[in-house]
Amino acid sequence: MNQTSYVHGYSVREAVRLSDQASTLSELLHYDTCYPDGSRVLECGCGTGAQTVHLAADSPRARIVSMDLSSDSLAQAQAKVHGAGHRNVTFQLADVFHLPFAERSFDHVFVCFLLEHLAEPLRALRALKSVLRPGGSITVIEGDHGSWYCHPQTAEAARTVQCLIAIQARLGGNALIGRQLFPLLAEAGFDGVRVSPRMVYVDDSKPELVEGFSKNTFIAMVQGVRVQALTLGLMDAASWDKGIADMLRAAEQGGTFCYTFFKGAGVRP
Amino acid sequence: MNQTSYVHGYSVREAVRLSDQASTLSELLHYDTCYPDGSRVLECGCGTGAQTVHLAADSPRARIVSMDLSSDSLAQAQAKVHGAGHRNVTFQLADVFHLPFAERSFDHVFVCFLLEHLAEPLRALRALKSVLRPGGSITVIEGDHGSWYCHPQTAEAARTVQCLIAIQARLGGNALIGRQLFPLLAEAGFDGVRVSPRMVYVDDSKPELVEGFSKNTFIAMVQGVRVQALTLGLMDAASWDKGIADMLRAAEQGGTFCYTFFKGAGVRP
Repeated sequence: MNQTSYVHGYSVREAVRLSDQASTLSELLHYDTCYPDGSRVLECGCGTGAQTVHLAADSPRARIVSMDLSSDSLAQAQAKVHGAGHRNVTFQLADVFHLPFAERSFDHVFVCFLLEHLAEPLRALRALKSVLRPGGSITVIEGDHGSWYCHPQTAEAARTVQCLIAIQARLGGNALIGRQLFPLLAEAGFDGVRVSPRMVYVDDSKPELVEGFSKNTFIAMVQGVRVQALTLGLMDAASWDKGIADMLRAAEQGGTFCYTFFKGAGVRP
Repeated sequence: MNQTSYVHGYSVREAVRLSDQASTLSELLHYDTCYPDGSRVLECGCGTGAQTVHLAADSPRARIVSMDLSSDSLAQAQAKVHGAGHRNVTFQLADVFHLPFAERSFDHVFVCFLLEHLAEPLRALRALKSVLRPGGSITVIEGDHGSWYCHPQTAEAARTVQCLIAIQARLGGNALIGRQLFPLLAEAGFDGVRVSPRMVYVDDSKPELVEGFSKNTFIAMVQGVRVQALTLGLMDAASWDKGIADMLRAAEQGGTFCYTFFKGAGVRP
């Protein structure tokens, strides 16, 4: 992945979306990640720091290095993390395929929403394994857009999500990578691999998730590729707009909304 | 639903499939259902008793009435439950739309894999509410075939599942009902409705689920509608067989398999 091919773009709206996502889903995704005091942790692909603030808060005395290949994102991440009062993170401009770290220099590696954007996720995992000490752990969190469905569901709504999946694939990514974490981590040579799904289920009893996930995270993300979808001729404007309206309907009273993240972990032998 | 329109048929293989499903998934689906000693419980649509054995075991001193509209199924259920040594269940031939019980005669109602087969699930829920005492609870467990996906996934595999959904719809059922439990229970007039998804995620680390769920429950269920799918012209034989082979591939090493059940509960005001 290079900077310009990142499917979600680098807009302010996208930064807000990532932040909404993290704030709403942080417990679901991060509650079981806490690194020991003094441990050396590499966060690869921190983006604008939406997850970094949780990582830093949940492991307050770990020594975290957060890297990204976008200097703009990195500056936002630094401002966000420092603004939240965390002093346990340093930031480094770096590419996962050219890691500027010595072999075996980290106790733990943390990756969240990165592999989905890479054409070679397996090579990335192997590169990350090389900077991990034997016995050190890797944790990977990824979504899977094929896991989405809602009620009421329509063909147009489903097609807008298929557009997002197709556009991410054209950019060399894989929006269905969540379900593949287990075989990827195993093939990369990690031991003791385990994967747990983190399903987000939203109904009327969960108004925070209706706003924080259904509308401001998922639907906003799909809406973000409208121009590409229409330009590529994947859908016509009327069908697209109906699909988005249908998804918004599922976020209203009586609707339900489902999506699953996957969290995988393994150990370097 | 009448007996002949039950999508899965009444074959021995189907009875085994239901039993495999229950034995493998029983903890996931039933661990949080336990009725007090002496409470009067109605299980509506017990079929061949695949879930009844768990219900009876988990609430050993509840007074359970299990009903079904198939006398053959009911006989199998009785043999299964009595064979397992449970004496807390009585069996009754009955139709949910003509319940032979007095109003308010049960403390709890339990429904598992029934609503998906009904053309009028809302009417069924209202009928069940009428035999429940005020303050009594209803528990409903249903699947949602639209929640299925796997890795590696192919278009043909997805189409076989779409065939099952379409055939169930032609029989008046709704294979996507899991995601609709919350609005259905709310509309039926139950209070305090809550729904929790029960996702089955299968990878190489879970060989029991590969056999017990992926192969012997889900793929077997899809295979069960092959003749109907081909007869109706929904798929050609070659595509169908490739789809099934592809799903079986996802149950081999390196594959993953996902499906979500929904468990809902509410209270009669």
